Amino acid sequence: MNNNPYSQLFESVQIGPVVTKNRFYQVPHCCGMGHLRPRAHAAMRAVKAKGGWGVVSTEEAEIHPSSDLAPYAEQRVWDKKDIPALKLMTDAVHEHGALAAIELTHSGHNSTNLFSRIPAMSPNAQAVNFLYPKQARRMTKKDISDFRAWHRRAALNARDAGFDIVYVYAGHGMSVAQQFILPDMNNRTDEYGGSLENRLRLTRELLEETKEAIGDSCGIAFRFAVDELKGKDGMQFEEEGRAVVELLAEHPDLWDVNVSDWSNDSQTSRFQTEEAYQMPYVGFVKSITTKPVVGVGRLTSPDLMLKLVKQGTLDLIGAARPSIADPYLPNKIKEQKTDQIKECIGCNICVSSDNFSVPIRCTQNPTMGEEWRRGWDPENIKPNVTDQKVLVVGSGPSGLECTVQLARRGYQVTLAEAQNNLGGRVLFESSLKGLSNWKRVVDNRTHEILQKNNVEVYKDSRLTAELIGELGINNIFLATGSSWRKDGIGRSRRSPIQGLGGISVYSPEEVVQSLEDINGPLVVYDDEQGYLAGVIADHLSSEKVEIIFVTPASVVSPWTDSTLEQKRVQASLINSGVKIICNQSIKKIENKTAVLECVFSGSITKLPCESIVMVTERISDTALYDSLIQNNFDGKTSYNIKIIGDAP
Amino acid sequence: MNNNPYSQLFESVQIGPVVTKNRFYQVPHCCGMGHLRPRAHAAMRAVKAKGGWGVVSTEEAEIHPSSDLAPYAEQRVWDKKDIPALKLMTDAVHEHGALAAIELTHSGHNSTNLFSRIPAMSPNAQAVNFLYPKQARRMTKKDISDFRAWHRRAALNARDAGFDIVYVYAGHGMSVAQQFILPDMNNRTDEYGGSLENRLRLTRELLEETKEAIGDSCGIAFRFAVDELKGKDGMQFEEEGRAVVELLAEHPDLWDVNVSDWSNDSQTSRFQTEEAYQMPYVGFVKSITTKPVVGVGRLTSPDLMLKLVKQGTLDLIGAARPSIADPYLPNKIKEQKTDQIKECIGCNICVSSDNFSVPIRCTQNPTMGEEWRRGWDPENIKPNVTDQKVLVVGSGPSGLECTVQLARRGYQVTLAEAQNNLGGRVLFESSLKGLSNWKRVVDNRTHEILQKNNVEVYKDSRLTAELIGELGINNIFLATGSSWRKDGIGRSRRSPIQGLGGISVYSPEEVVQSLEDINGPLVVYDDEQGYLAGVIADHLSSEKVEIIFVTPASVVSPWTDSTLEQKRVQASLINSGVKIICNQSIKKIENKTAVLECVFSGSITKLPCESIVMVTERISDTALYDSLIQNNFDGKTSYNIKIIGDAP
Repeated sequence: MNNNPYSQLFESVQIGPVVTKNRFYQVPHCCGMGHLRPRAHAAMRAVKAKGGWGVVSTEEAEIHPSSDLAPYAEQRVWDKKDIPALKLMTDAVHEHGALAAIELTHSGHNSTNLFSRIPAMSPNAQAVNFLYPKQARRMTKKDISDFRAWHRRAALNARDAGFDIVYVYAGHGMSVAQQFILPDMNNRTDEYGGSLENRLRLTRELLEETKEAIGDSCGIAFRFAVDELKGKDGMQFEEEGRAVVELLAEHPDLWDVNVSDWSNDSQTSRFQTEEAYQMPYVGFVKSITTKPVVGVGRLTSPDLMLKLVKQGTLDLIGAARPSIADPYLPNKIKEQKTDQIKECIGCNICVSSDNFSVPIRCTQNPTMGEEWRRGWDPENIKPNVTDQKVLVVGSGPSGLECTVQLARRGYQVTLAEAQNNLGGRVLFESSLKGLSNWKRVVDNRTHEILQKNNVEVYKDSRLTAELIGELGINNIFLATGSSWRKDGIGRSRRSPIQGLGGISVYSPEEVVQSLEDINGPLVVYDDEQGYLAGVIADHLSSEKVEIIFVTPASVVSPWTDSTLEQKRVQASLINSGVKIICNQSIKKIENKTAVLECVFSGSITKLPCESIVMVTERISDTALYDSLIQNNFDGKTSYNIKIIGDAP
Repeated sequence: MNNNPYSQLFESVQIGPVVTKNRFYQVPHCCGMGHLRPRAHAAMRAVKAKGGWGVVSTEEAEIHPSSDLAPYAEQRVWDKKDIPALKLMTDAVHEHGALAAIELTHSGHNSTNLFSRIPAMSPNAQAVNFLYPKQARRMTKKDISDFRAWHRRAALNARDAGFDIVYVYAGHGMSVAQQFILPDMNNRTDEYGGSLENRLRLTRELLEETKEAIGDSCGIAFRFAVDELKGKDGMQFEEEGRAVVELLAEHPDLWDVNVSDWSNDSQTSRFQTEEAYQMPYVGFVKSITTKPVVGVGRLTSPDLMLKLVKQGTLDLIGAARPSIADPYLPNKIKEQKTDQIKECIGCNICVSSDNFSVPIRCTQNPTMGEEWRRGWDPENIKPNVTDQKVLVVGSGPSGLECTVQLARRGYQVTLAEAQNNLGGRVLFESSLKGLSNWKRVVDNRTHEILQKNNVEVYKDSRLTAELIGELGINNIFLATGSSWRKDGIGRSRRSPIQGLGGISVYSPEEVVQSLEDINGPLVVYDDEQGYLAGVIADHLSSEKVEIIFVTPASVVSPWTDSTLEQKRVQASLINSGVKIICNQSIKKIENKTAVLECVFSGSITKLPCESIVMVTERISDTALYDSLIQNNFDGKTSYNIKIIGDAP
């Protein structure tokens, strides 16, 4: 360890009465499991502890039915009956020598209470922060008193469930403590409103009362958003954000600092390419408090982590997404295998899982969320059961991942790629504006494959059934991918758009390569409604061609709402001068004009259209699969064949 | 029973090998409980059986992980491990003499498999029917064969779980069997595509194989949507809809017929006021088959039910929503207490629960969804524990419901209403276009209250703390309601809109009463984003005044997506000539102009505006509560006070 250049990252840190084994700190993050799936939750957190994280935290933990986050699956400490489920997690985390932390949460008007059916409450009366015609009531003095008692009781229950660190939470716009602090959420005229001192009163009471209750055995962490990135309309780190830290400097045992709201704290790489992008905001905190400080910002580089500790910016390296992409990140640094770190690509598919109330998944770590159900672990897979050879056809993300896992199991793998580069769709997509970090999907896997001596890689090798016959390999994974169709079939229509022959029609790949030839204006037609059409429009918007974005959806790229990006996507297109036409499907093309049909009323409008890029649906490339299956069927071969990825 | 004019509704019906006790049939409906909450589910269905329904069905029951409907909470019969949870329901239903039915479902491209992570599959390759960038693959012959085996296994497991009736399901656009039948979902060229006979092949196989497997002990029901209400673009009851019934006439033991999709099958009263509105579509079925037929259409009138049976339209009275609003509907008809039926108002708050993945609730039946957690039953509440008197102030929906339940418990209740009519906000809202059925909330409760001799009702009685003192009642429920604020504070801003003094500003109530005086154009500003602003705009659109609907949301009344109404709401406004401006918040008013700010880019546009109706947020009326609490605090009184409904 002494020879490890990163040894400083493996120093202990005192947090109140508890001590971490190193500086790696998995901050609280949602996972779509929560109280609904306690065994899955415990197993997922356990893998992180096993991977070396010194502290492993829960997601938000509701402290009372009046803060019921249904339909989102978060933790619950409503009462003692929740202790056994929580103890599954703390026991599993402790088994691997990590500390377990819990984020006690009352969500104020951020909870709708659709399960508990209790009125919501917050500092002011206001609408709940969920699309439901329900308002939170203004908390009375009794409500505040009750809330403090619930928080104290929850802290005691958390301690009894085995947690080492217990949070007071004022972040993400998601907690009543923060709502009291923010002037636009708090217009009270009593001692809990008005001056900052008054608006901080509740938080101060929570910190003191939690410490009084359990401070002898648990560290008390304070998670606080120092800035809302709203300029003068919100909390600013140089104004009240700093003042809060000054006023409470020595109150908590640990400062966990970030920026608010969630879309700012968990910015995607598409809109925020900088690693450690939160440091300019939270960097001041350590100059004010003697207590340890943890911060985040999609930290994946060990060198940067070391620098942040050395220069005194952070005491603990916080991570949510990087710990999801690679639960073994700390161990890999410890074992000087930093080249093996699976780096977060900042795509927020993890966030989308929680937003859809399903267990978390990760582009870089396919085991994430399957630790309990399938017993998966990102660094441990069962060894091969035969010594037969395996062929993988296609090197897009699924072909690469398949190759990596087969190689780890010990199989002799042949990977054949038709193009002259590995990566498939990722090569194209990562070349588009904002998506360069996605290339990590290819780079991490290619790097591992090249180090294996049981993988042979063939580029420029488009295989046929005949060529496969010559290889003499019986076990075949087909990851032959898909291509974007150009006939207009998509979410809103199941038959081709008539009249496309009269104009230039491009696929997403083609349009990027054909910019010179395009007769503007170019219509980007999004009837897939995922992310790609928005990316294409953004990518092309800097070119000379005029872009008109047409979609049957009501907003640009509606799916990206689940990755916290939608508002940024649409703003970006507007600011780039892209004309946006929502709620319209293309009925047909005639005379170089797109006939648009309103999805609500069926009314018709017309739009000049000489060029169009279709982002509507993909066609799987199953030609090779079909011929291999036919050979099997005809008795000519007896392959084991599996088609994977986008190809099926 | 022989003297009961509705005795024909209590005749038995043979369904294959099983026999119902009457003609009341709760068809399958979602409830937001499913496999996630099996005890709650069993208790909810049990109350319906107790209330007299002859058949009680589950919601959709997934037959395989490749039809995983997460995040929606439906039933599962993935394998034998699901039997105990299902048996909770069948046992509970049998206990009350009803038959239990289960709707076996494979959802094809209607399932996203976010939990199971298995590729989706459907007759054609196409996007999944959920806003996720994922496509279903085209089913191979092996897939079809597997699917038939899964269905058969699920039927056997369903039988073993105690079900009496097992469904083959082809409705709502939600099942792979229906997807095979519909030409625009099936472009196959094999024996499962092309002619109707071919497209029906899978359904026929399912019916035959299910009957072969369990037909000796279970009735086999076929749920089929005879029309998609899309005209020539979809299934029509006079065309292929009829042909399907002819081709399969004697195959199932029961025909459960409706219209597709869900938004058509479960139309709200706002857009479909007719009871039995589906009869024109499904009425032909009985003329073709000798098997019993069940149909639906928000049937709440016993006279109409009787007529449908007498005239040979239906054999069984199907109900989803009417059985939710009143689980005791059959018993009330049997006991000749038809005036006590709680009639469904057709608001679809029940549907919204499932769409939000939370347990079902109902405007008419507040016990719905709480049968297990709180032990509630709509017709049984524990008797009073004291003989003290109770005062209820306010007769909106919560004041009325509170009065009813207190009266049932045996308390001496005084109900005081400031206006000269009972009903509060319901009186106003039910006067608006499309919402007349909502008046049932008041009528049902008022009717019951008037029959009670332990309730005294005082209209035109605005109470003060002083007047309450004179009443000498110590137990007080305050249902004083709320009023719409007019300062512009709402979801998108927490401070008043400046400049409103220069124009005419109306509340929703005021604008309806002030039509003569309005200087058009009138801006309807929706920053609540529920249902009311859309209703107001629709209501006023037939008047002479020009309406401009402005909202920071991306569509009109986005919450109504959860009640399956959003597309109809927006279409209605467009067709009425209402101008719609989405994605814009009002920044300020100056010179009779609304300064609009784009929610994405912050860019500014201007809109002439002399009159505006604000639908943004409500202000609770707590004046009486505050003064009573103060008196308690000052030691002048010692009331038991509870504030309920919109008032808190």
